[in-house]
Amino acid sequence: MTNNPIYFDNAATTPLCPGVLDAMLPYFNSNFGNPSGVCSFARTARKGIDAARSQIAAAINAQPNEITFTSSGTEANNWAIRGVFNKKAGHIITSVTEHHAVGHVCEVLEGVDVTYLPVDSEGFVSPEALKAAIRPDTALISIMWANNEIGTIQPIAELAEIARERGILFHTDAVQVVGHIPVDMEKVPVDMLTMSAHKFGGPKGIGALYVRKGTKLGQLIYGGAQERNRRAGTENVAGIVGMGTAIELAVSEQEAEFTRISALRDELIKQIEDNIPRATLNGSRGEKRLPGNINFSFDFIEGESLLLLLDMNGFCASSGSACSSASLEPSHVIMALGVPYENAHGSIRFSLGRESKLSDINSLMEHLPKFIQRLRDMSPLDEKSEKAE
Amino acid sequence: MTNNPIYFDNAATTPLCPGVLDAMLPYFNSNFGNPSGVCSFARTARKGIDAARSQIAAAINAQPNEITFTSSGTEANNWAIRGVFNKKAGHIITSVTEHHAVGHVCEVLEGVDVTYLPVDSEGFVSPEALKAAIRPDTALISIMWANNEIGTIQPIAELAEIARERGILFHTDAVQVVGHIPVDMEKVPVDMLTMSAHKFGGPKGIGALYVRKGTKLGQLIYGGAQERNRRAGTENVAGIVGMGTAIELAVSEQEAEFTRISALRDELIKQIEDNIPRATLNGSRGEKRLPGNINFSFDFIEGESLLLLLDMNGFCASSGSACSSASLEPSHVIMALGVPYENAHGSIRFSLGRESKLSDINSLMEHLPKFIQRLRDMSPLDEKSEKAE
Repeated sequence: MTNNPIYFDNAATTPLCPGVLDAMLPYFNSNFGNPSGVCSFARTARKGIDAARSQIAAAINAQPNEITFTSSGTEANNWAIRGVFNKKAGHIITSVTEHHAVGHVCEVLEGVDVTYLPVDSEGFVSPEALKAAIRPDTALISIMWANNEIGTIQPIAELAEIARERGILFHTDAVQVVGHIPVDMEKVPVDMLTMSAHKFGGPKGIGALYVRKGTKLGQLIYGGAQERNRRAGTENVAGIVGMGTAIELAVSEQEAEFTRISALRDELIKQIEDNIPRATLNGSRGEKRLPGNINFSFDFIEGESLLLLLDMNGFCASSGSACSSASLEPSHVIMALGVPYENAHGSIRFSLGRESKLSDINSLMEHLPKFIQRLRDMSPLDEKSEKAE
Repeated sequence: MTNNPIYFDNAATTPLCPGVLDAMLPYFNSNFGNPSGVCSFARTARKGIDAARSQIAAAINAQPNEITFTSSGTEANNWAIRGVFNKKAGHIITSVTEHHAVGHVCEVLEGVDVTYLPVDSEGFVSPEALKAAIRPDTALISIMWANNEIGTIQPIAELAEIARERGILFHTDAVQVVGHIPVDMEKVPVDMLTMSAHKFGGPKGIGALYVRKGTKLGQLIYGGAQERNRRAGTENVAGIVGMGTAIELAVSEQEAEFTRISALRDELIKQIEDNIPRATLNGSRGEKRLPGNINFSFDFIEGESLLLLLDMNGFCASSGSACSSASLEPSHVIMALGVPYENAHGSIRFSLGRESKLSDINSLMEHLPKFIQRLRDMSPLDEKSEKAE
């Protein structure tokens, strides 16, 4: 129905911001040197990395030497957690709604007990529950800043403060946050923070871990002396430069984009609630929800079928985490909210970004109610559907 | 003296081959989707990855599902080794001349004994020594196919066959080999093989591990279900596509380039030996040396000083591994050959690539003998120098 697909999957990945590719190109061509070398080619590459590190540090009010580049947010999460438990046993506290890049790492830690904190019906971790879960051998608390599926923004400063008071390291997966809502490392007592470039208009294949000065952390990837002996492997110079350029732009636009995108989000939520019966918003409303996140469960709808119908008609959305789209299991995040199994299957995420506009939402809403009705008509489960319409 | 620097550091990293960037560009722009999604953007990205996987498999005569993308050769090495010893103790055999991305990983394995096989004066591992080192609990043998500093090509099929006969897994770091000399996984009984795109005209930040069908290997990076649950993290799609394009070109040119670059190598070796006294070639000669590798020790020369002098005059070379240029210690590879400490300090690597030409060598040789003499004149150690000239 539309010719150009309309993209509602910015939480999965974003197109490059303007200027990012242009900033990267020289590092594919003339500035192709290995930054660990000693000649002019190497120096140019090194300068590109240094500048990007400063851009990223500035964006979160940190020091450049607190930023270490990784190949992804996933690698940064793996590193933060396994680096703490490199050579020791102990206890880690996390939550039931973490991304698999935290959850699955916790599952495989040898000799480490894991406490998975529950969340309430909007996806919030309770500070009181965190306090109660702490043990004498708790070495790390890892709670995501904002959820990738339902957009719930945790009270991260409050949670991190609980860790700080007890001398426990605190890590947060902030891939959905950096570049979208303010992050100030002087104001949140977080020891380690994960970022991913392609979530804020940078390229795929590059991420970073903020590690607060003085934090003791083992390595994940050993080898050469790159990244001050913290992360081995020839640097992805072009990717790093792209990440720096993207974050600078994202932060410069952040306040205006936050307002604009939040309004679009609330408009789409309103239109869905006004026009589609038995649609339940997953997550929170207002300020404690990521500006670009809309996640609904539609009773009696199979999410996968709705996605395909949307796709066939030129709308790109997702059923929660892109990383688990291949799986037919319902989202662990939606299940954790207490949503019944059948409805968890029908959850759909629309995530907005800097290219989203009101006409996208209006185009979507021309079709979405019909699609849902069509799928409900086909559903053997939907006995209430015909009566309700 | 020259305006454009002449690049003799292709073993550290290579410029992109023609066509590689053009192949990548669409995946930064229109085809920016997350390959794990379900919409049209995702499918386009997935097709790019599938095509690149097939290109890489074809280049080494393997099956596409035996190729898993990583962020670098270093990550692939870490994964191959730590994946075997994920949940078990045992014994690993490696060599004293491995890249740190193997050597340093072996050092930190918990509960694993490591045997470091010595090498002879040309850098070869002895098959007899390998046989003698095998123990009942040997779980992995990891020997690099060709050395990054001195270019020595190991008898990898023979070494791997020893492992195969005894049911021991065999891994090889082949980052200096793939795209440069023939690799046929049907002919070498290697179970795991490490590749890195930027060593053969592809971009930095992308590598791959070949894992022979049926090989049991744990994970290094956990999270989403990417790469058939073997390596989590949103795929570096553009990098993957670039790697596939680069390897296809490299292999198509391989035979002609092998001949051409080997001849340039032998010419530079001859010119150095004819024109510079007390210059000792490190490594082997002829077919058992990488086509692009030249490595010399110059008596009484500090390698770092020579590199700086070369750089100031527009020549880019290196003192062995780029990954250890920051270190002032002499190369562990050169030391392992039995070269005295003072001379190991004076080793320099010139590595050739597809843009190298005879005029580069002639330009270098207009200056290199003078530079060496100048540094020897300054050296307090060089008592023989004046007498010898």
